[in-house]
Amino acid sequence: MTKPFQFQLEAKSGRARAGSFTTPHGTLETPVFAPVGTQATVKAITPAQLDEMGATLVLSNTYHLYLRPGDELVAEMGGLHEFMQWPKPMLTDSGGFQVFSLSDRRKIDDDGVDFRSHLDGSLHRFTPEKAIAIQENLGADIIMVLDECAEPHDHAYNQQAVARTHAWAQRCLAARKRPDQALFGIVQGGIFPDLREQSAEFISSLDFEGIAIGGLSVGESKQDMHKVLEVVDPILPEDKPRYLMGVGTPEDLVEGIRRGVDIFDCVLPTRLGRNNAAFLRKGGRLNLKNAEFARDTNPIDEGCHCYACRTYTRAYLRHLIHAKEMLAATLLSIHNLHTLIQLAKDLRAAVIRNEFAAYVDSLGMRHTALDETETRVE
Amino acid sequence: MTKPFQFQLEAKSGRARAGSFTTPHGTLETPVFAPVGTQATVKAITPAQLDEMGATLVLSNTYHLYLRPGDELVAEMGGLHEFMQWPKPMLTDSGGFQVFSLSDRRKIDDDGVDFRSHLDGSLHRFTPEKAIAIQENLGADIIMVLDECAEPHDHAYNQQAVARTHAWAQRCLAARKRPDQALFGIVQGGIFPDLREQSAEFISSLDFEGIAIGGLSVGESKQDMHKVLEVVDPILPEDKPRYLMGVGTPEDLVEGIRRGVDIFDCVLPTRLGRNNAAFLRKGGRLNLKNAEFARDTNPIDEGCHCYACRTYTRAYLRHLIHAKEMLAATLLSIHNLHTLIQLAKDLRAAVIRNEFAAYVDSLGMRHTALDETETRVE
Repeated sequence: MTKPFQFQLEAKSGRARAGSFTTPHGTLETPVFAPVGTQATVKAITPAQLDEMGATLVLSNTYHLYLRPGDELVAEMGGLHEFMQWPKPMLTDSGGFQVFSLSDRRKIDDDGVDFRSHLDGSLHRFTPEKAIAIQENLGADIIMVLDECAEPHDHAYNQQAVARTHAWAQRCLAARKRPDQALFGIVQGGIFPDLREQSAEFISSLDFEGIAIGGLSVGESKQDMHKVLEVVDPILPEDKPRYLMGVGTPEDLVEGIRRGVDIFDCVLPTRLGRNNAAFLRKGGRLNLKNAEFARDTNPIDEGCHCYACRTYTRAYLRHLIHAKEMLAATLLSIHNLHTLIQLAKDLRAAVIRNEFAAYVDSLGMRHTALDETETRVE
Repeated sequence: MTKPFQFQLEAKSGRARAGSFTTPHGTLETPVFAPVGTQATVKAITPAQLDEMGATLVLSNTYHLYLRPGDELVAEMGGLHEFMQWPKPMLTDSGGFQVFSLSDRRKIDDDGVDFRSHLDGSLHRFTPEKAIAIQENLGADIIMVLDECAEPHDHAYNQQAVARTHAWAQRCLAARKRPDQALFGIVQGGIFPDLREQSAEFISSLDFEGIAIGGLSVGESKQDMHKVLEVVDPILPEDKPRYLMGVGTPEDLVEGIRRGVDIFDCVLPTRLGRNNAAFLRKGGRLNLKNAEFARDTNPIDEGCHCYACRTYTRAYLRHLIHAKEMLAATLLSIHNLHTLIQLAKDLRAAVIRNEFAAYVDSLGMRHTALDETETRVE
């Protein structure tokens, strides 16, 4: 199988990495934040707007697209890039996380998982082979193995989930057919250093093009998340990209990159954008619904160069929110995504200059990611 | 009072007119279709997208902005252009139509109208002077007199409404203070030629910068609407722009321009866009929710050059609709507005070539606007 994927580690600054990952739809410069387009669209914004904000990698969701409109329809339409008209790199998850979080009455066994659709209650089954087949129909550049995501504080459950995840990882590798898709393995193990170490070693030993760290940002503390990253970082191969799944605030990007992560994704920036909240680059958030912004002629975040900040006042955004206008969600989603995408680019440049720590200091983050209660200000 | 407004009639083709109207925010080429931004935003789209589709004039709504966020706040924020960041010409209506259609328990007398807010039931009063004062706070280039919009088939009521509209028109002229705003009078009179004739003559005799035809598209037949246009067209002065309020389908544009109208606005293109319907340039509509489009790789309307048609298939739009994604409303609103804006531009060019009738024939409209039941296909 010829592989069009090459990861080049260009620089390190402490444990922070700058790299580039070639894909059939262009080269990803890492660290990178990927907007999530769950149902083949990043909610409330157009691909033209994504492009303008400098997005490169976009994620979409296997569970959702399998159920609607169906992966076979997407394949008929020329695949996900063509269907949603995103010409740059794309990534699909395996659908496993959604099976565990969204669907009713799931029943897992060593072969796979039965679940009912959250849309209409219909019965479905995912196996490692099925998750790969669906993702081959969707046609993203980066696809993921099916894994089992366990409650992070239950050692016995995580031990079992790690064993299953490892067996499924091997089956996914055996099942893959398309040489134009990179397959990433997933490290599991909850908050437990022994399980994470074991999982990182096993997954690193297999022939994946990249490695994801799953089962985080699911209820554990920031300290536990950082500890896991510190455990796996020295074990993971230097010459493969590392993807921290489902993580994305400005603080999380800094703390993840500091611990060797290359790729991030999260629904938070667009979900917050539909709920009146704006990231600040230096950490924390604004709730623009508040009365204090009624006559505020400042942009959302001083110094931000996104379309919303270049164009509008906080007073206008507050008006849109109170008037229940869709443009509020659009502008806040643009701002939140731009903040993370641009922060990842700036941190990359700092790594290349070997000034990561100094650059992070210069951001003047008001809240360290180590302080959970402070980080979640809204 | 120095007036920065000049209307130049550039060409006629039959009764159809091509002109240009200078305003402090640029020259409007007519005929023109104006997107409606009721609450200081055209629903589901950005000003950047409006600009890309060639929009020039944008309308906003006095009743809505007076109630929320308040015209004084908009004035403090630098006026409507600055607040919503639309740098080209803007028009505000007087709020009269919304008082009659949206608010509860309105009570009209010769001096003005009491009404309750549809938002919170609070009591308010509009007079001609108040409608002008609010619009001077908002600061659009074109503002409208307060008028009384009557049920179109009731002759006695329309006779009374015309008298009141005329008295209020004179009070609005006396009340206006800003020389950088064009004030348009409004012709009323329901479907009745005698009243329309009388109103067109009286309003034409006053010192307005333009003249609107109100009280149409409110339940009367297309035949009645066209008859009214034919009655007023020869009475209205040639050297002032004519604005047909609240009218906007491809068929309506053709039939209005054919009868001497220069300016149109309507919420229909964006309202339809939020309800899965797309205009076809040659008349009629598609409901993109339908199963027949599930695997349709055509653009919404063959030959349309809007962002949605250049970029997406009907199959993708149908997916967005079924997945309840906001992008569906955005893309369909872009398409519907672009269709009307571009059609007005193309009809303008045909007038300048003195080929209006031949150009309309070449559009091959499937449904004539004279046939109401055919026009409203969905």
